[in-house]
Amino acid sequence: DHCILCGFGRIGRYIYEFIHQEIPMVVIEKNSEILKELKEKGILHLEGDATSEEILIKAGIERAKYLVAVLGEDAENVYIVLTARNLNPQLYIVARADNPRVEKKLLQAGANRVLSPYVIGARKMALSLLKPNVMDFMEIASPELQMDLQIEEIFVEEGSTLAHKTILESKIREQTNAIILAIKRRSGEMVFNPSSQEKILPGDILIALGERKKLEILSDLAKKLKD
Amino acid sequence: DHCILCGFGRIGRYIYEFIHQEIPMVVIEKNSEILKELKEKGILHLEGDATSEEILIKAGIERAKYLVAVLGEDAENVYIVLTARNLNPQLYIVARADNPRVEKKLLQAGANRVLSPYVIGARKMALSLLKPNVMDFMEIASPELQMDLQIEEIFVEEGSTLAHKTILESKIREQTNAIILAIKRRSGEMVFNPSSQEKILPGDILIALGERKKLEILSDLAKKLKD
Ligand SMILES: [Ca+2]
Ligand SMILES: [Ca+2]
Repeated sequence: DHCILCGFGRIGRYIYEFIHQEIPMVVIEKNSEILKELKEKGILHLEGDATSEEILIKAGIERAKYLVAVLGEDAENVYIVLTARNLNPQLYIVARADNPRVEKKLLQAGANRVLSPYVIGARKMALSLLKPNVMDFMEIASPELQMDLQIEEIFVEEGSTLAHKTILESKIREQTNAIILAIKRRSGEMVFNPSSQEKILPGDILIALGERKKLEILSDLAKKLKD
Repeated sequence: DHCILCGFGRIGRYIYEFIHQEIPMVVIEKNSEILKELKEKGILHLEGDATSEEILIKAGIERAKYLVAVLGEDAENVYIVLTARNLNPQLYIVARADNPRVEKKLLQAGANRVLSPYVIGARKMALSLLKPNVMDFMEIASPELQMDLQIEEIFVEEGSTLAHKTILESKIREQTNAIILAIKRRSGEMVFNPSSQEKILPGDILIALGERKKLEILSDLAKKLKD
């Protein structure tokens, strides 16, 4: 159930930071300076070329849940994805494309999701000029608010407080002040901006926006009550 | 009222793409290959070093509204920000920091907003592993939905349909199915997740999430009615 991270460069190191507390990770890296750093930091890693089948197998690809391919060369990422997909058809693969034209190739090769960090970064910088209030809202930079807004996905369990109630009856607003942006039904259907009369069902995934701590409360409400 | 874009590299070129239809832009670039590309594409530019006062003045910094500093070297961006801030105290400056430790220096130097493209890109890749449903929601990648969700900021004009109505009375939900995530008051106060009884006032900025086309309708409702 671990994640194999191919590349601990400028992007890879931050991905590691964001994920490693949630999911066990193995890093594959060939750059000797970075290897030194990995050793010093005590980060689990393998030395070698992530495009090689051998090293992917060593990293436990056959029982891994995730693979992230974020080398600086698009062609290498395509090759990793092809190799990884052959070795494990169940793997969830996220790949980096610096050249947007490579996106399609990565998907063909078997990536589940392809992202272009430069495009994402540039879009956010553009947004900060074109829509500064939206940026402020998303960050809630204003210190007096002290909110830390985030979007969470919350799975509704059978036997929980929320199950089989309408949004109004659930008192989500009163208890958490979270906004239910959408409900993803078990069928995959996405109900956008559900009304207060919409019923919450077991198996639903609530997409909720709110304060970090309040969302934890919401998450508890979505869990099966213990008797 | 133009924007000076310092650097047309991997990040800068996408910022140009996102912004140039909204805001007139002048690019400053010194790399000869990129200069050739700028000429071929007919993009307004100046050849030179964006850290130089002279070239910033040539680019019209004294009457510019925005400056974006996205060179590949943090130190150069700090220098640009310092120089630009001295030449125009009103300028809105957005700067790139590759090393997060440079953020503070850029703010000290006078940047209004500092962003780290690598961190932003990495966060989004991490999110695609940790919260795939949130990602799906934000992108609404599912082709059957054909929604293109975005967040807009909408200024409410005096004399508009929305002014002095509660959210319920405004019929925003019925007419646009947009979610009002927050209201930014004229005072700067941000009312998060406003209730249906919250009054919309002239001068408010609505932070709304919805389909692109529906948000255009909302934007029209926020404009002064012509008599
Ligand atoms: Ca915050
Ligand atoms: Ca879309």
